[in-house]
Amino acid sequence: MNNNAMDRLIQRIRETDNPTVMGLDPKYEMVPEFIRAKYNADMEGACRAILEFNKGLIDSVTGIVPAVKPQAAYYEALGPSGMMVFKETCDYAKQKNMIVIADIKRGDIGPTAVAYSSAYLGKTKIGEAEHSIFDVDFVTLNGYLGTDSIQPFIEDCKAYGKGAFILAKTSNPSSGELQDLKLETGQTVYEKVAELAKGWGKDLIGENGYSSIGIVVGATYPAQIEELRRLVQSTYFLIPGYGAQGGKAEDIALAFRNGLGGIVNASRSLMTAYTKVEGLPAEQYQQATRAEAVRMRDELNNAINE
Amino acid sequence: MNNNAMDRLIQRIRETDNPTVMGLDPKYEMVPEFIRAKYNADMEGACRAILEFNKGLIDSVTGIVPAVKPQAAYYEALGPSGMMVFKETCDYAKQKNMIVIADIKRGDIGPTAVAYSSAYLGKTKIGEAEHSIFDVDFVTLNGYLGTDSIQPFIEDCKAYGKGAFILAKTSNPSSGELQDLKLETGQTVYEKVAELAKGWGKDLIGENGYSSIGIVVGATYPAQIEELRRLVQSTYFLIPGYGAQGGKAEDIALAFRNGLGGIVNASRSLMTAYTKVEGLPAEQYQQATRAEAVRMRDELNNAINE
Repeated sequence: MNNNAMDRLIQRIRETDNPTVMGLDPKYEMVPEFIRAKYNADMEGACRAILEFNKGLIDSVTGIVPAVKPQAAYYEALGPSGMMVFKETCDYAKQKNMIVIADIKRGDIGPTAVAYSSAYLGKTKIGEAEHSIFDVDFVTLNGYLGTDSIQPFIEDCKAYGKGAFILAKTSNPSSGELQDLKLETGQTVYEKVAELAKGWGKDLIGENGYSSIGIVVGATYPAQIEELRRLVQSTYFLIPGYGAQGGKAEDIALAFRNGLGGIVNASRSLMTAYTKVEGLPAEQYQQATRAEAVRMRDELNNAINE
Repeated sequence: MNNNAMDRLIQRIRETDNPTVMGLDPKYEMVPEFIRAKYNADMEGACRAILEFNKGLIDSVTGIVPAVKPQAAYYEALGPSGMMVFKETCDYAKQKNMIVIADIKRGDIGPTAVAYSSAYLGKTKIGEAEHSIFDVDFVTLNGYLGTDSIQPFIEDCKAYGKGAFILAKTSNPSSGELQDLKLETGQTVYEKVAELAKGWGKDLIGENGYSSIGIVVGATYPAQIEELRRLVQSTYFLIPGYGAQGGKAEDIALAFRNGLGGIVNASRSLMTAYTKVEGLPAEQYQQATRAEAVRMRDELNNAINE
């Protein structure tokens, strides 16, 4: 196995011919009624229903979508049992040969970053024994605290063949309030972060010329995608904001060079595809998700290859 | 009960005459051997040992220290069972009439922020039922994503009488890499964040003149403490970095006006106080923690009242 996480992600993207990742941001009310009806409508039942739904979603796109991105918030909102669903979802996706990007957006001082990294990328020591906890392929990180908040993750990336995406220019409407501010050097804050991320990833460049430390750039900001692609050429982009948030395929294509350079997230548009197909019984939600995943893949590939 | 979180915190600070918070950042190796020996040295046993240690630490400072600050990373590093320890620790501290500040440093796009806030401050809906999950008094947040990433927390602060501290100038050595950068307006990034935080808190100002939305300012940066205190006068400061990280009482005093304005965190110096007292049996760790808490309280009060 290639021990460079970005090489592994790129390999799966090539095998599926699909530069997308399915976000798994489950809320109880998204779960089809026929699944919810199997369990109690309490916290434990909700967790079981969501896990079944997640597994069904993963099954529906296995072989089509190369990666999943569970968003920690939706699991934390269900408490400790929800974190078990998070873990079981990650494990199930790995069994299905999918790359797992844990969307955690953590960022903390050095010793605390060590603890976070041991939870998601490395191992937790209990006495002499080392325990894998969530053991995903990639995490998302917030670089506001600077290099010493990222370094422990980089060390685990090296030791365990993992990767990370650093928030540069996020997809949300307010992202410009801080990220777009101009520094006295003329750079924006998000450009500065992208440059820092490039430096953080310099020892993790794989066979494809990309580092295992990437950045997050929202599909909703095409001018910034284009500009950042010029600024950091060995940096892969995790691109949220396609679909429900309004990002378009032709904007996303700006992140790509020779078919590589970005992985595009869709969460709600894949998870709730079954609600958009008139007359489709909810029992066939997997068919709707698969169809939407194929449509998204083709739309993106058309735009990227133009 | 006063429904303003900052008023409640200030009331507890006044009752204990102590502007400090005990950080609960437990690692298995910190737990006294006589506690570890009661449990298996596996993940479940480690969780039980850590919970017993946390409860013992809380007991040791009950009535002396007004608040605790569990750091989520150390619990996530123990997986879903660790998140249960996090919850039980928070619940135990609340039973002991302590204010709980969950150090989570989350920051994400709007819909995701709704999920995070429901986990820590608000409630999670399952069908018609609303469930309290971790239900703490305050969280720490990272504002890199801007207003729409904070707004859901503000709404829960209003609805449930909760509060938040926004990362402005953090205590770690690399914090300046982004936070100290000068904008073309002449402001630094951390000043800009502090001003945003002031705006986010404007509808949450309590009887004491302070908002339930505070900021985090490291004890390791006294010049910034002094400057930020001038800049945002109705904003409370959560001040990490005292003790093990090197922050000094006289530096911290710069955050205070008339005895109010800051709450100072100490984690390792309180949790591992028992290892610093020569000849003390580990069975008496609570005595060492209590003595250190009293020493810290007196040192800070002396500096603040000078």
